[in-house]
This record gives sequence, structure tokens and C-alpha cells, in this order.
Amino acid sequence: MAHDARENTDAPQLAKRILLGDPLTTEQVNDQLLPKRMALPIFASDALSSVAYGPQEMLMIMLIGGTAFLTLSPWVAAAVVLLLIVVVLSYRQIIKAYPSGGGDFEVTQKNLGEVPSVIVAAALLVDYVLTVSVSIASGVDNIISAVPGLNPWRVELAVGFVILIVIVNLRGVREASTVFAIPTYVFIGSVVVMIGTGLVRMLLGDAPVAASAAYTVQAESLSQAAMVLLILRAFSSGCSALTGVEAVSNGVPAFRVPKIRNAKTTLAMMGSIAALLFAGLTALALISGVKYAENACDLVGFDCSNPQPSLMAQVASATFGAGSIPFFIIQAATACVLLLAANTAFNGFPLLGSVLAREGYAPKALNTRGDRLVFSNGMILLGLAAVVVLVVFQANLTNLIQLYIIGVFVSFSLGQIGMVRHWRRVLRETHHRPLSEVATERRSAIVSLSINSLGAVMTVSVLIIVTITKFTHGAWMVFFAIPVLALLMLGVKRYYRDVEKEIAIEDTTHFGSRGDVAIVLVNRMQKPVIKALDYAIAARHEKTIALHVALTPEDGQVLQRQWQEYKIPVPLVIVDSPYRTFAQPVEQYIRKYREKHGPAVVTVYLPQYIVGHWWESVLHNRRSRRMANQLMLVHGVSITLVPWLLDSSELIYGRRSRPLPGQERAGRPFALYGGDQRSGERRVHRPAGPPDQG
Amino acid sequence: MAHDARENTDAPQLAKRILLGDPLTTEQVNDQLLPKRMALPIFASDALSSVAYGPQEMLMIMLIGGTAFLTLSPWVAAAVVLLLIVVVLSYRQIIKAYPSGGGDFEVTQKNLGEVPSVIVAAALLVDYVLTVSVSIASGVDNIISAVPGLNPWRVELAVGFVILIVIVNLRGVREASTVFAIPTYVFIGSVVVMIGTGLVRMLLGDAPVAASAAYTVQAESLSQAAMVLLILRAFSSGCSALTGVEAVSNGVPAFRVPKIRNAKTTLAMMGSIAALLFAGLTALALISGVKYAENACDLVGFDCSNPQPSLMAQVASATFGAGSIPFFIIQAATACVLLLAANTAFNGFPLLGSVLAREGYAPKALNTRGDRLVFSNGMILLGLAAVVVLVVFQANLTNLIQLYIIGVFVSFSLGQIGMVRHWRRVLRETHHRPLSEVATERRSAIVSLSINSLGAVMTVSVLIIVTITKFTHGAWMVFFAIPVLALLMLGVKRYYRDVEKEIAIEDTTHFGSRGDVAIVLVNRMQKPVIKALDYAIAARHEKTIALHVALTPEDGQVLQRQWQEYKIPVPLVIVDSPYRTFAQPVEQYIRKYREKHGPAVVTVYLPQYIVGHWWESVLHNRRSRRMANQLMLVHGVSITLVPWLLDSSELIYGRRSRPLPGQERAGRPFALYGGDQRSGERRVHRPAGPPDQG
Repeated sequence: MAHDARENTDAPQLAKRILLGDPLTTEQVNDQLLPKRMALPIFASDALSSVAYGPQEMLMIMLIGGTAFLTLSPWVAAAVVLLLIVVVLSYRQIIKAYPSGGGDFEVTQKNLGEVPSVIVAAALLVDYVLTVSVSIASGVDNIISAVPGLNPWRVELAVGFVILIVIVNLRGVREASTVFAIPTYVFIGSVVVMIGTGLVRMLLGDAPVAASAAYTVQAESLSQAAMVLLILRAFSSGCSALTGVEAVSNGVPAFRVPKIRNAKTTLAMMGSIAALLFAGLTALALISGVKYAENACDLVGFDCSNPQPSLMAQVASATFGAGSIPFFIIQAATACVLLLAANTAFNGFPLLGSVLAREGYAPKALNTRGDRLVFSNGMILLGLAAVVVLVVFQANLTNLIQLYIIGVFVSFSLGQIGMVRHWRRVLRETHHRPLSEVATERRSAIVSLSINSLGAVMTVSVLIIVTITKFTHGAWMVFFAIPVLALLMLGVKRYYRDVEKEIAIEDTTHFGSRGDVAIVLVNRMQKPVIKALDYAIAARHEKTIALHVALTPEDGQVLQRQWQEYKIPVPLVIVDSPYRTFAQPVEQYIRKYREKHGPAVVTVYLPQYIVGHWWESVLHNRRSRRMANQLMLVHGVSITLVPWLLDSSELIYGRRSRPLPGQERAGRPFALYGGDQRSGERRVHRPAGPPDQG
Repeated sequence: MAHDARENTDAPQLAKRILLGDPLTTEQVNDQLLPKRMALPIFASDALSSVAYGPQEMLMIMLIGGTAFLTLSPWVAAAVVLLLIVVVLSYRQIIKAYPSGGGDFEVTQKNLGEVPSVIVAAALLVDYVLTVSVSIASGVDNIISAVPGLNPWRVELAVGFVILIVIVNLRGVREASTVFAIPTYVFIGSVVVMIGTGLVRMLLGDAPVAASAAYTVQAESLSQAAMVLLILRAFSSGCSALTGVEAVSNGVPAFRVPKIRNAKTTLAMMGSIAALLFAGLTALALISGVKYAENACDLVGFDCSNPQPSLMAQVASATFGAGSIPFFIIQAATACVLLLAANTAFNGFPLLGSVLAREGYAPKALNTRGDRLVFSNGMILLGLAAVVVLVVFQANLTNLIQLYIIGVFVSFSLGQIGMVRHWRRVLRETHHRPLSEVATERRSAIVSLSINSLGAVMTVSVLIIVTITKFTHGAWMVFFAIPVLALLMLGVKRYYRDVEKEIAIEDTTHFGSRGDVAIVLVNRMQKPVIKALDYAIAARHEKTIALHVALTPEDGQVLQRQWQEYKIPVPLVIVDSPYRTFAQPVEQYIRKYREKHGPAVVTVYLPQYIVGHWWESVLHNRRSRRMANQLMLVHGVSITLVPWLLDSSELIYGRRSRPLPGQERAGRPFALYGGDQRSGERRVHRPAGPPDQG
């Protein structure tokens, strides 16, 4: 207890304020809404930044089939871009139909039922963690591509960035967005310039040449089936560029009005930019002959004791020259936008967590807004999970990509299927109404139905492809985690429902506890005990008894003498404890008391030390806390903790005693009540005599 | 809170009983006293078992000087035996003068003052940890010498033995002693037989020859000074045979009467046996030509991919034949007695810890006797420390020996110096009384003074030698640990003294808190809140107020409606919390209340869930606990926790509801009071109306 209270100490509070800013009121939520130009960088950084690793991982898989195999890459890239367009169109329908920000979870819940919706939620939670991990791993990769000397600190850097992002996010969404807008726009701008420069140079007959263009690989000889599988695997990896498309649909409530139109526009802008960057980067990489291998040592000609530069770095070097200023701008912007992409998850995960908590699928603590109006617990949880994943996978991008996008496509697929149901229901419902009235509505629903049906077919197909090609490469872990999480959520839901039912008021619920006995536990005659006695007397219980648990007869005798000497106005009862336990004899005494005097509500008074340093709680016996825990299990007993503020507690206490009228600190207490004194309460010297006992 | 209470669950309790036996009453302490034949194995196993590593480590150092250097070994061994005799004689004086079991700590405290006594205590605590570590490392060594296949599990074996010994000791000293007597006597007997056999074989001209007799070492060419230093180092290592001599003097209170005579006899027996075994084993090792090297690979002729057999194992093999039955008996007895030696520390450390706790130098928890009358916390602490040391040093005996005996000789030296002072004071005090009266007393004191003076000179000299020869080999860690521990103890003492002074009753201490307001915190209208309300009403405070902290205005309105609907007989006050905090608005309300109505003791009623599974506490908001912590810092406030036992709490609760008259469980609660119901209390349906408010 005493220890926990320490969170109020001045220093941590001050640090919290500096890091997180001042607290905000609930009403200020509305001021935090985003205009489109701010919403784009916040919600789109995930999808846009994916182009930093999507083309790289796609071409890397193609290279397994040998250099000649790379010529098939444009077709694979085209398939990815096509899928991206379909998914963006599909999500525009979701924004229209479900603008509350529930996204796939809400769509699934309303159209497919509880179990699919919980699976979607689990898949999304897993993918948020992986978004953070993959984005940061790729960001660190790009930093190392520019500054190879940092290679030994790969994991430390990654973990450091997670912590940084958590802190930034705990400050709240609005201030964060200003930080985020600039690098996202710089990234888009500089990559577009790079693609343009590269293409122009090619047209002028001066095509850029990557440093790795001359490297060769030992191509495996592949059967026809293996080649198809390899193409599908490359397609799966390329699909990682689609992650984050759903972010906008989950963030609709954060947009300014007209929310739906603004969100749809932002989503379309994001989709176009992402498609452009993906296609452009892939083209430029192929033009400049970039070779990026799964295992750097497979590259004949490359000294694989060095880290392999990222595709982005190789293209930038080829286009602008290695070590040139534009190269560093591209790398810095890429790294920034990837770190900001991780940030998207810090918007989505806590929001989904709070929705789940509100609906009873997750611990209620996830629905507690912190001082700065953000769901702090969800952010901290996501940060911890990402750190664990990054450390376990040593921030290795290629290994992390294997786990990625399963979750995204599980929720894409279920969301699209849910939307198909939604539109069919809309059509059914308008069926019986006059056509003139519902013509526009029906036409719109039919268009949406077609789009979402196409989306459903394509995302389910991709999910199957991704599963087949990635399962044995690590994706099985995700297939294990999603159902486990989903079952946990269903269990939590059931638990809350049971408790709710258990504590709900029933018709038979009525007042009427009788009898009122206060038992003040007395160990030695010291101020904390005297204070507890005094409070018990002040509360004027029907009966007040002081109870001493004597480990040895001598202890009891000493106390008895002091009791008489000080003329304490409460009867003292001494019970023996041959087994040196404290709670049991008290329990026995209560039982005997009730046998004799009939039922009674018993209030046990326990003095409780409040200390200022954590180590003090090691030095004080935890007896009082243990007793409280044990006595609370006894029927009809409540525990009154009477705090005794040790001097050291001023460390935590000082902050709380803000200037209150008549509450100035009176220096070191010289009389009984350390606490009361400071509160300026008057005290009357009461002559020893029987207390007010009814 | 709820979580902690779980320690009462049936299963853990049952396991505790099976492992530790039934609880004992305080009076049963007297039945636990030891006869001499039991005291010897318990207190002497440390000193006796040292011969398993003392000669080995001594000869190992001599071997650094080359094979020829070994011829000097008998002289070094003789010096060790001489020192042993002097130390034993010195400790007999301590037993005589200070039979309370305080040992060197008490002697130093009474004769040299606080700081030296705390240094002795710190030194002893460090050495207890090392006794456990060294004994177990050596025990595991001897097991591996017999069963080399266990070599890869050296550390795991060592840690396993520590855990085993902790469990055995938590059962209490008496039952432990029966387990210990047999192997100690088997060890003494079998080693004596081995020494006898070896000597007889030598006299018959058939001297045993060790397997390592043929090995040679690359002797370093040493300067004269280096040779002296090497001899001193060998002597230092040989002195490890002296550890544990003090155990008897610390254990006097555990002896049967006449305690002093019995303890002195036991100490003399122990000393004689130890000297005999040390001398005999060293002689036999030299006769059979055992070579034991610091680094096994220095032995020319030995395949150092195997573990080096211990000296004991080599001597036993040479005398009885490798793999013979007597060989295995010797190894088993050696290993057992070493593990039992570790046990000595589990008697000494917790006892010293409890003495320190009683005097305020250590946390009070070390003076809490457990169910089985042993100081459980001290045992667990020692076990943990030993595990850490064994893991850090990978259970390597030679490295551990470097740290050992510093502590022992620090306490030996200060204890002897203290005794010199003690006898000089005795002589001074008897000086002015008639000679006829004090002649015997003075003569005895003069003898004792001479013995302890010799002891002081010798132990201080050895301490200097040990420090010089071992400091750079790791002993510096001990020289760092001892002052740190000593300073910690002095700090703890000062802390307790300050607190004691702070909470002591003063003349100005008086009763007389006034005003009595109960504030029942209401979140939602559920049974736990209703129960808290009902208890507050039953306690008949001067004024009872229900307080709701509203995060949104809607919450408050809903509650207000229900309040009227249910006709709750307590006024409801709703306060807003724009910053979503809970404690601050309550604090403000209390302040305003006092400004209006004058000073008052405020009792805040908080419902508290009691749950049966640890994971349930994750699912419940910790809000109530956080509020309790924060409100306890407010002046004049006490906290009443009204427990609500969720159904799952029966897991912990079941055990406590032992057959009480009229307390049968009434199945699932159907009305208001889950807890009360089961206690068979009557409840009266009280019509809605104003509560008894004075």
C-alpha cells in the first residue's frame, strides 16, 4: 500500500508533466479533431511507408529464382497494385456504411456475429504489434544503410525507438500530428522526385546503375510448381505494402466534419500515392538492377560481413550518387516515415483495446483515459509487446515480414464478407418499399455490393496464398496467437458477464445489518495505535474493544500495565497466539463475541504506516497488510485502515497538501495526530473516562 | 490485496504441510534441545567437512611451486593444525564467558562497541553464504569424482542441493538432526579407517599410489620472495579447514543442560577429530603422491577434457582401489557431510539474522518465527544468496575458496580481541576485592586471557596473511561486501530508532478527535456498494453521505434516478471529475465539507472485491486500491474497506470457513450479503427512511 502511494512523489509527477504535458479535460476531446492535411500523415504513414519494404521483400523472393526470374517482377507488382486499388475501394464502402470508427471489428460484429468479430479483433491486435515491429525494423535498416557503423546496435536502436514513440503518443494525438506531418510529406515528395529523376535519366539513356547490379546469385534450378510457388510467395511479400489501408476507416471519428467525405477523400489520396510509389520504386529498382538477397552471403561479389543496404538506399545511391545530399534526405525521410508508421498502430491499438474493453472483451483498464485523454494502458501494452517481438526476432526485417499481413488479411477478408452481407441486407430491406423512393439508395448499394464482393473474393484468395506460402516460414506463430487471443477475449467477456450478474441488485436485496462492534488491534502503545483508538472512539460505535494478540504472556502483561497507567478509555482484551499467527485469534474472538452477543457488523481498526521511500516498506513488517487480507475473508467484517504518516511520507504528502485555507503545515508534529494537526483540526483534551459507547 | 490473500488456498497450504510438517507452538521450543551426540553432527559438520577441501586446496597451491615444493607441505599442514588447536581453545573461553549463543557478535558488541560488532555481523553473514556455496561446490565435486557423467550438470546439481537443504531446514532443527547424525559419523569412521589402512599399508611397504602420482607439472621458477608468498598462500588455503569452529559457540542455547560443559566438550571433540582428519588426509595424499592442479591442463599426463577427481577421491582410489565399494562409501559420506556442512549455515545465519533484527540492525521480518519455529525468512534469504553465488561462480570450488575465510578471520580476530578486553576487565574488577575470595576466579581469568591473547595474535596474523595472498584473487569482493553490509545495518538501526522516537507516546499525547462523517463512495448501483452503504448505516456515524464521482454528467443522472427509485436512505452527492481522476474530487469535497461544518474525522467506505484467482485481479480495475492509497494521505481520513466476496473467492474462503456453529454455507447467496449470509447473521428488512444519523 504504502509503496504504491509513491506514484504521487513530486519528482515522478514533474517528470510525467514534462514528458507528457498538462492534463486535459474530457471536453477538450473535441478540440483534438484532425483536418485532412493532418489526418493524411497520421493515418497514411503506415500504408505509405510500406513501400520502403514491400518492393524490397518482393524482389528478394523473386531473386531466389535467379536473376532472369526478376523479369517477371513487373507482373507481380501489377497484381499488388491492382489488389491495393480494390482494397481501397472496398474500404471506402466501409467508411460510408460504418463511420463510427469500428472498422472491420464493427462490420464483422454487426454482420457475422460474435466469434468472427473476436477473431478479427485478435488478428488486428496481433497485426498492430507486427506493424510496430516491422516498421521499426525497416526504419532501423534504412538508418543503418546510411550509417553502417550503427549495425551492432540494431536491436538497441529499435527498442529505443519504441520507447520514444510510446512517450510521444502518451502526450496525445493532436500535438503528435504536427510532429508527423512534415516528414511524411518530405518522404512523399522526395521519393516522387527520385522516381521522376530515375525515369528521366533512363529516357535520356543514362539509366541509374545500382552498386549491386554487377552481383550475381547462384540460381536454384526450380521445377515449374516451385516457380509458381515462388511467384506467389513474392506476391505475398509484396502485399505487405497493403498494410495500414484500414487505418483510415478506423479513424473516421477523428476527422473534422464532414467526417465521411473527408475520410473517403483521404483514403483515396492515400491509395493513389501508395500505388504510385510502389510501382515507381519497383520499376526503378529493376531499371537500376538492384539485387537484394535473403541471405547477403548468397550475393557473389558482395562482402557479406557488412550489412546489406536496403533497396531504398540502393535506388537512392544509384539515382543521386552514394553519399550525396539527396541520398541522405531520402534515407532520413524513409526512416522517419517508417517510425511514424509504427505510430499508426499507437492510434489504432489503444482505440481497439478501449472498444473491446467497453464491450467487455478486454480488461477494463484498457478503457481508462489517462491525463492526456489517450488510452495510456493500451499504448504501454503495445509498446511492451513490440519490444518483446523486436528482441526475440533481433529486429530482423525478413523474419518479421513472414509473420506479417496474416492478421491484416484475416480482418480484410472477414470485413469484406461482412460488408457483402451488409449490402445484401440493405437491398433486402429496400425491396418492399416503392422503387421511386429507394432507387438511388438501391443503385448505390448495388455498386457497393459489387465492389465489396470483388474485395472479398480477392482478399480471401490472397489470404489463402499468404497462408500457403508463409505458414512454414514462421506464420504458424500468428495462426497460433490469433485463436488464443480470441478465446481469451471470449473468456473475459464471460467473466465480466458472470460478475455483473453476481453483483446486480435483486428484488430481495435489502438493508438491515445490525450490531456495531469496533475492534482496535493494539500491538504496542505507540502513537499510530493511539490514533486508531481515537478514531474508533470518535466514530462512536455501539461497542469499542481494544484487542491485543499476545505471542508471549509477558507482552500482554506489559501492555496491561501501560493501559492502566495511561487510563485508556477502552476495554482491553488480550488473546493468546500459541502458533504466532495474528489473524486466527482475532477471528476466533469475533466468533466467540457473536456467539455471546448475537450478530454484529465488526469493524477492525488497523493502523497503517505511510512511508515515503520504497525501501521503508521492506523494513516495516507487512503484518498489518497480511491481517487485513485475512480478516476481510471473515463474514461481516470490514477493515478500517487508520493511516499514520511517518515523517518521510512528506515526500509523497507534500504535493498533496496544496495551499488550503487553515491547512498550513505546523512543522514537526508535537502531539498525537501527525496527520490531523496539519489539517488544522482542533483537538480537545478529553479527560480519561468511558468513551461514548452508545 | 485480493491477490495476496491467495496464500491461503488449499493446495499450497497442503503442499506446505507435506514439505514442512505441522505447525508447532512456542512452548515446543524447549523440546527441540539437542543432546551432545546430535549436536556434534549438526554443529561440527562444517568444520569436519572442511578437510574435504582444505588439504586439497593447500596442496594445489604448493604444486604451483613444482613437485619438489610439495616436500614442504607437512610444515604448512602442521601450522594449520596448530592454529586449529589455538582457535578451538580460544572458543572454549567464549563459550564459558558468553553462553547465550551470541558468539563473536556478542563478544565484540559488549567489549569493542557498535561498529566492530556490526562488522563482525556483516563478516559472518557473508561467510555463511560462502560456507553454503563452498560446501556444496565441494560436495558436487566429490559426487562428480565418483560419477563423472554428471559433470555437465554441475551448477544445476549445486542449486538443486541448496533448494533441498532449505526445505529440510524449514521443517525445523530437531527432525533435521536425526537425518544429519548418520552420515557425519559414517564420514568420520570411514575416513579414519582409510587413513589407518593407508598408514598400515605404508608400514607394510605397500604404500598406496595415486593415479596422478606419475603426472608432472611444469614448475615455475620462483624467486625466494615468491616462494615465501606461495607458502603463505598455501597456508591461507589450508586455513579453510578452520571454518565452522565458531558454530558451536553460536549454538550453546541449543544444547541440553549443563549447556556450557556440553558445548565445551563438543567443541573439543570436534577440534580433535578435525585435526586428526586434516593431518591424516594430508599425510596420505603426500604418501600416495596425489597431484591436484589449479588448472587440470597443467598436469602433464592428464587428459584435461575430463573433470579432475578430488583429492579425497584420489586418496580413496589409491587406498581401496578405484571403483571399489569402500571408495564409493567414502565419496558418498564426503558428499553428504559437505551438504550437511552447508546446513550449519542454515542454523547460524537465520539465528544471527534474528538477533540482528531484534536489536534493530536488520528488517524485522528476520525475527519472525515461521510455523515450524524456525526463522523462515532468514533461511530463504540465505538460500537465495547461495544460489546467486553458485550460479555466478559456476559452482567452481577453487574460485570460491579465494573469497572464503576472510569473513571468518575478521570475526575470529575481532572476537579474540574482544575476549582479551573481557578478561582484562574481569581482572580489573576483581582487583579491589580480597584475594582469598577471588583467587580461583583470577587464576582462571589469567589462563583465559593468555589463551585469548595468543588466539588474537594468531588470528590477526592469519587475517593479514590471508588478505595479502588472496586480495587480488577475488577476496576484494568480500572486502567490498562487508563494509557495505555493515553500513546498511547501521542505517537500518538508525531508521528504526528514528521511527520509534517518532511514534513514541509523549506527555502531550491526548485523545479527542471530533466530528464523525462517513463518505460511502458509490460508482454503480450494485451489491458491493449496497453492502458498503449498509455497513456505514449500521456503524451509525454522526453523518453518512454517499458520494459519486461523475466522469460524465450522464453517469450522475442515471445514478440519481436509481437512487430515488430504490429509496436509498442516505443522501447522494454527485461531484464532477473533468480530469477523470477519482481521488482529487473526493479530497476537494472533504475540504469543502470541513470548511462548512468544521473539523471532522472522515471515514471513507470503499467496496473491495475479494477474488479467488490471481488473474481476476488483472480484470478488475484497481481503482479502489489506488483511491485508498491516495485518500490515506489526506488529513483526518481513514479508509474502511468493505469486502465483497465474489463466488470465486470460495477458493480461498473455503479453507477459512471451518465448522463453526451456525455458520454452514447457504449455497449461492440469493440476497444482499454474500458474506454475512454464510455467517448466519439475521437481517431485518429495514423500510426505506432516514438512517440513524445521531
